[in-house]
Amino acid sequence: MWGGRFSVGPSEVMEKINASIDFDKRMSAQDIAGSKAHCSMLVKQGIISTEDGNAILQGLDTISREIENGTFTFSPALEDIHMNIENRLRELIGDAAGRLHTARSRNDQVATDFKLWVRSAIDELDKQTGLLIEALIKQAEENFDVIMPGYTHLQAAQPVTFGHHMLAYVEMFGRDRSRLQDCRKRLNECPLGAAALAGTSFPIDRHMTAEALGFDRPTANSLDSVSDRDHALEFMSSGAILATHLSRFAEELVIWCSQGFGFVTLSDAFTTGSSIMPQKKNPDAAELIRGKVGRVIGSMNTLFVVMKGLPLTYGKDMQEDKEPVFDAADTLILSVTAMTGMVSDMVANRDKLHAATADGFLTATDLADWLVKELNLPFRDAHHVTGTIVKLAEDKGCDISDLSLEEMQSVEARISQDIFRVLTVEQSAQSRTSFGGTAPENVKAAAKAARERFLS
Amino acid sequence: MWGGRFSVGPSEVMEKINASIDFDKRMSAQDIAGSKAHCSMLVKQGIISTEDGNAILQGLDTISREIENGTFTFSPALEDIHMNIENRLRELIGDAAGRLHTARSRNDQVATDFKLWVRSAIDELDKQTGLLIEALIKQAEENFDVIMPGYTHLQAAQPVTFGHHMLAYVEMFGRDRSRLQDCRKRLNECPLGAAALAGTSFPIDRHMTAEALGFDRPTANSLDSVSDRDHALEFMSSGAILATHLSRFAEELVIWCSQGFGFVTLSDAFTTGSSIMPQKKNPDAAELIRGKVGRVIGSMNTLFVVMKGLPLTYGKDMQEDKEPVFDAADTLILSVTAMTGMVSDMVANRDKLHAATADGFLTATDLADWLVKELNLPFRDAHHVTGTIVKLAEDKGCDISDLSLEEMQSVEARISQDIFRVLTVEQSAQSRTSFGGTAPENVKAAAKAARERFLS
Amino acid sequence: MWGGRFSVGPSEVMEKINASIDFDKRMSAQDIAGSKAHCSMLVKQGIISTEDGNAILQGLDTISREIENGTFTFSPALEDIHMNIENRLRELIGDAAGRLHTARSRNDQVATDFKLWVRSAIDELDKQTGLLIEALIKQAEENFDVIMPGYTHLQAAQPVTFGHHMLAYVEMFGRDRSRLQDCRKRLNECPLGAAALAGTSFPIDRHMTAEALGFDRPTANSLDSVSDRDHALEFMSSGAILATHLSRFAEELVIWCSQGFGFVTLSDAFTTGSSIMPQKKNPDAAELIRGKVGRVIGSMNTLFVVMKGLPLTYGKDMQEDKEPVFDAADTLILSVTAMTGMVSDMVANRDKLHAATADGFLTATDLADWLVKELNLPFRDAHHVTGTIVKLAEDKGCDISDLSLEEMQSVEARISQDIFRVLTVEQSAQSRTSFGGTAPENVKAAAKAARERFLS
Amino acid sequence: MWGGRFSVGPSEVMEKINASIDFDKRMSAQDIAGSKAHCSMLVKQGIISTEDGNAILQGLDTISREIENGTFTFSPALEDIHMNIENRLRELIGDAAGRLHTARSRNDQVATDFKLWVRSAIDELDKQTGLLIEALIKQAEENFDVIMPGYTHLQAAQPVTFGHHMLAYVEMFGRDRSRLQDCRKRLNECPLGAAALAGTSFPIDRHMTAEALGFDRPTANSLDSVSDRDHALEFMSSGAILATHLSRFAEELVIWCSQGFGFVTLSDAFTTGSSIMPQKKNPDAAELIRGKVGRVIGSMNTLFVVMKGLPLTYGKDMQEDKEPVFDAADTLILSVTAMTGMVSDMVANRDKLHAATADGFLTATDLADWLVKELNLPFRDAHHVTGTIVKLAEDKGCDISDLSLEEMQSVEARISQDIFRVLTVEQSAQSRTSFGGTAPENVKAAAKAARERFLS
Repeated sequence: MWGGRFSVGPSEVMEKINASIDFDKRMSAQDIAGSKAHCSMLVKQGIISTEDGNAILQGLDTISREIENGTFTFSPALEDIHMNIENRLRELIGDAAGRLHTARSRNDQVATDFKLWVRSAIDELDKQTGLLIEALIKQAEENFDVIMPGYTHLQAAQPVTFGHHMLAYVEMFGRDRSRLQDCRKRLNECPLGAAALAGTSFPIDRHMTAEALGFDRPTANSLDSVSDRDHALEFMSSGAILATHLSRFAEELVIWCSQGFGFVTLSDAFTTGSSIMPQKKNPDAAELIRGKVGRVIGSMNTLFVVMKGLPLTYGKDMQEDKEPVFDAADTLILSVTAMTGMVSDMVANRDKLHAATADGFLTATDLADWLVKELNLPFRDAHHVTGTIVKLAEDKGCDISDLSLEEMQSVEARISQDIFRVLTVEQSAQSRTSFGGTAPENVKAAAKAARERFLS
Repeated sequence: MWGGRFSVGPSEVMEKINASIDFDKRMSAQDIAGSKAHCSMLVKQGIISTEDGNAILQGLDTISREIENGTFTFSPALEDIHMNIENRLRELIGDAAGRLHTARSRNDQVATDFKLWVRSAIDELDKQTGLLIEALIKQAEENFDVIMPGYTHLQAAQPVTFGHHMLAYVEMFGRDRSRLQDCRKRLNECPLGAAALAGTSFPIDRHMTAEALGFDRPTANSLDSVSDRDHALEFMSSGAILATHLSRFAEELVIWCSQGFGFVTLSDAFTTGSSIMPQKKNPDAAELIRGKVGRVIGSMNTLFVVMKGLPLTYGKDMQEDKEPVFDAADTLILSVTAMTGMVSDMVANRDKLHAATADGFLTATDLADWLVKELNLPFRDAHHVTGTIVKLAEDKGCDISDLSLEEMQSVEARISQDIFRVLTVEQSAQSRTSFGGTAPENVKAAAKAARERFLS
Repeated sequence: MWGGRFSVGPSEVMEKINASIDFDKRMSAQDIAGSKAHCSMLVKQGIISTEDGNAILQGLDTISREIENGTFTFSPALEDIHMNIENRLRELIGDAAGRLHTARSRNDQVATDFKLWVRSAIDELDKQTGLLIEALIKQAEENFDVIMPGYTHLQAAQPVTFGHHMLAYVEMFGRDRSRLQDCRKRLNECPLGAAALAGTSFPIDRHMTAEALGFDRPTANSLDSVSDRDHALEFMSSGAILATHLSRFAEELVIWCSQGFGFVTLSDAFTTGSSIMPQKKNPDAAELIRGKVGRVIGSMNTLFVVMKGLPLTYGKDMQEDKEPVFDAADTLILSVTAMTGMVSDMVANRDKLHAATADGFLTATDLADWLVKELNLPFRDAHHVTGTIVKLAEDKGCDISDLSLEEMQSVEARISQDIFRVLTVEQSAQSRTSFGGTAPENVKAAAKAARERFLS
Repeated sequence: MWGGRFSVGPSEVMEKINASIDFDKRMSAQDIAGSKAHCSMLVKQGIISTEDGNAILQGLDTISREIENGTFTFSPALEDIHMNIENRLRELIGDAAGRLHTARSRNDQVATDFKLWVRSAIDELDKQTGLLIEALIKQAEENFDVIMPGYTHLQAAQPVTFGHHMLAYVEMFGRDRSRLQDCRKRLNECPLGAAALAGTSFPIDRHMTAEALGFDRPTANSLDSVSDRDHALEFMSSGAILATHLSRFAEELVIWCSQGFGFVTLSDAFTTGSSIMPQKKNPDAAELIRGKVGRVIGSMNTLFVVMKGLPLTYGKDMQEDKEPVFDAADTLILSVTAMTGMVSDMVANRDKLHAATADGFLTATDLADWLVKELNLPFRDAHHVTGTIVKLAEDKGCDISDLSLEEMQSVEARISQDIFRVLTVEQSAQSRTSFGGTAPENVKAAAKAARERFLS
């Protein structure tokens, strides 16, 4: 394979550590597309003959069909997808096959294939994340006015609506899509034609191949072209943030399904049972999604460590780039899809959500705000008065709205009957009309705006 | 501090684990700017009086000066920067201070402060990276035609120019700046006014505060506003890619300074000696920059792990966000600045660079390309012929250009005298005129284009 | 500082990136101890005179006191702790100070200092973890028979006791201590005397210095001695596992404190309030401990990335080893200490724990086991029968123990009155008498055994 | 599969995210061994009949053979290896199969299987690392006196021997084995019989199953037994340190093979060529080994992130434990094996190694030491004198041994002819006779000692 210079073949363990065909065969479509673009350009530039070019193009189409049909035989002895395809091409069309590798190297070839693969993974993940956003907006629309406790520190804090909570995730996943799209834009420069590292003396047209493969332009520096794996690092970093968002939502679902909460019911389709405890209905999908953030972060780390301190240009270390990216992409798409399924099927248990607002003195802030607005107390003083009233209620074992006016007045004499107007959780939620606040009418409008911002 | 509900103060170890003032005091300027914007808005909306508003603004200005002068006393008992400033404000202006916290919470306050801090760190890092790019372009311009071996696998591969090599890094750092700028754009939504988590019933104007603080708009969802740390994760991910680029360049500098290469000379200002070996001149700055990528990747991991699986909204875990971001920002800015200094002082040793091209049969590809162009061999066959000629030269212990025409013809009879035209490293580099290739004239033009693309 | 070979001093940014005195001054005690041992050995071997040796020893003692008193001036221009101390020694005792560095280098010196520091951090962390284990055993003893739901997937599964749950953590922290002790044993070889990298021609006695510093023996290879940072990596890996255990317990505490559970009450000393919501009592210490696992994992990653691919022997990259280790050690000791405080103060709410066992059909497994034991059903069949009975109860909205015998018999006719004997949560827990099972008597015995295994 | 309680099967995406059979089938041997031990114990304790027990044991043997022969059909619908085997057992022996799952759960079953798998991976990795150590010792023995430059900061520092360098790695890999053995010892407690989480009411004998499976004892707490993944974390942490050592050696091999060094020649069996540059002979195996440290660190991170913050006991997140461990184990064993092959074939190029000692003033320390010993200069002064002499030599473009006595005396008048005795690299290396030093006789003895310490 390496011309006439090697006298001994690779050892068995070398073949095992060196061959990439087991995983890089996933880039066969990209490899063939790249080769076709390269071939057409070579013909157009008069570097190879039209006849040879046509033979190559037809041969590549045949190989493409063979791979799709599963009749193509991948050989580890041929090391990688590039050599497997080139070798088969030679079997199919003879010596003309040997002209395809003119003015290119495996270094620019694999960089091109890999960028194309990452680009299509981004497109799929972006699309799937859009479907998740849609499912969340639907839940928000259906539950725009369903009151539940909002939490800080997993302590009940203030009433919010279930719809508002869903829309918080819409913001997160919306940013994720934006990050993916930026990554796509940045990677969309074509390395093909950088050859091994220095460019070539053949009169190639890199703008032509770039355009044929949907790139915005060719890369500007040949050394960088074959050394660069930024697209993979940026894709995995963006994916790790997305996975982190999924893990937060998954954690909430696990907690919400627990007996102590019971906020939502997941469908049988996304839960499983136990081999020993017949009563169990476990939120396995949520847990798996939560766990899989580890995998994406792990894969991202893998590539950062691989790339650390690598001198230019291509080093074989960089062959370790593909498996973490493939695994991260698969994991992300699977996780998002499973989350979309779960969210679509999920039922918000209005009664349990509302019942939970009875604990935790959720309208304490409303009381403090009333003191500021009506009695003109500085907020800090109002905060202190409210704290004392909460302690009173806590000692009595009741909510603050269950205290009598007299009891409240024993703490602050100027409190009037009007106070009870602000102490229900419904009134509390409705009053949060500031931009981005949880008032049901806000949520309704925000869901509509989200459809326009994210789904149009 | 928590109103009337707590009967016992924190234990000593609690104070130690809980207080953040030791590090979040770095956000004092941001905290004061946010408070001033909030205060002006409260006045404009009639929520607090002009008089109180003015007192607050003046008090904040006083505090700002005290902090600048170093006369401000930070107290761990007051836990964080927000409470330290508010407490001092109360000392300075009395009860009116208590009105500043109307319609906000520490949750939206810290989110705003932190975004402002990250935004200015991005701006500084972006600027410093621009200076590094400028230093690299200068080196490229000065050395656009200095021939050196280009490497793959750290094996000499083909001749390139030193300037071309410098411009490869310009592409990397150019992408880094683009990533930082995208991150800045995405984070530039203002959380202030989201209050604790649900928004507020006070008639605040979030668009006004957003604009006053240089944000593009207020955030759209109050729960997300106080739960979101994407800006920190994205900043550190982008920074980790930048640090990875630095580590690659640093590795090259370390290797280039080694006795076996001697490609560059670093200035005394960026090297150090040994406490035991008097002859040593070590590339410490390069090594430190290489090592510091670990720190940035570590910090990024810290925050990913912190955020994994956190239920909405704010949790105290999120206090662990600042130190890694501060450390990553400091590390990145220091590393970039040190690299700029090193690159500016660095001297490319033309003689040693050229001498190194004698090893490694660097023009073998040129020989193969000649066989394709002149004899119309398929590239694969040309590759094989060249391999055999290389072996011949290797066995003789000479370069391929040192073989006689007869020796070459013993491998491929049609090789003519014309072959020697392509076998010098100068001719080889000059022939790589494809877009992005290493031909000196290309490099000159690319340096000029880079000035326009990155420095205008 | 570097002898006569450097003509220009370091640039400002170089001084900033290069100096380590800001953090390595934490190793001053170790550095002085190492120097004293080295000095005594040099005297004993006749390499320096007794007079010089005594002057050095006294000078070092003076410096030691100065550092303790805070009167020592650390100078960044002197770069690191070694040069700061040596320089001060020269001020104090004159030229004799210059003899201390005979037959050693900063490379072996820093390796020795760092090992000594890590060793004492291990000892402190090991001790503190012992105190945490003790606090957990106390809770186990007090609550050995307090029934609560045991969870899988955060779904109530089977009754366990609170004490049994505490002892699960005792096992984890017990393994952590064992890991730390193994790490200590493995690191306990002394690098001093490896000099720069190759050993020395002076007739030193490395066994003597090793013994004086409490090491088991000198290291066996001089190159490895100055290149090795295994002790730091192993310490941080072991610490990361410990921190992971802490994060799991912290997560449980956060959930247990939430309104939906209410299983435990944390003391005011380990909770905090809110700046806006006067009613809040947040489990901040638990959240911080949970978050801090990120920091330890991040620090561990930092050093792994730093060490990746470093050629032998010492490289300046390795200066990046100390800060992550210091931060990890501080974080671990603080987290363990805070957890011990929290656990010691924590009150298990027996009523709420017991009340929670009403949900989730916790004795379903007991029913299935009864079917196996009494009716000789294969477990798989018993599992299926039980599942059907659970569905019956779920549809009726009651526990399985609330079903009538007839209702159960409608599913499996052979079920008899005896079944009700196994359907209480108390009976269920008491029946789990297998080794390591949750039966209260088991737990009592296990707590006693744990005292012997871990605290004696 | 979950008894009678589920009305709808899993969705397609759920089956995809949930099923583990694709990877956990690697634990089939462990699963069957565990089941056989459990079955024999159930019979011995009278929990199931001898007849049923025999049927189960024979059925399991049949399954074992089917898996070995490749005739076993793994079904994703049956989710995991446990259910696949149990289901097949029922096909083979009927209802008796249903009795095997008495007194156990998949939770303790998978914990047992996984520990057994990790234990055997440790044993294999330990053995392979022993073979690598042997190959290194052989190289050390053959090259105990081959002089080469020792490096710090990749700058030539002092002469060492190639053998001494090899033995540095023997120390590292020796510590790695020690870590693996400690991990094995610590994990060797059997979780089987912890059942789902609480233990069981069946009269099982956990000591019997523990012993049958080669464990030292049963685990002490049932909750911990099914929640614990320490063995996996510790195995991967230890493996990450080992992989870091491999990456350092691999980096050296890549540098040593580069044209600037040429220190070693790797065999054709462990190098590859280029698809475009016919002259290339690339150290691919070394680069791959260097890169693969990323993979092990990534896998370790995956599991740390997965385990972070998981409440007790088993959660489905923990299903994400196996793939990273399998990948880390495969990667480590492959990397070590490939390194052993490379080291065994590697030829140290004595001439090039020696030639390289001409650069870098390698005996400067010897000169300084001579000044200390013969002229009684304090080391710091000797260091300064030597620095000045080195500068003299550098300015003249020669080595210090090439300076005349007069030139040296111009710096320090008392230098005598005797100085030339210590200025050859051979003399320098021979003089480093301190314990662990590089003197060839030391190296010879150290290699012998290493055989005894590591290979007996």
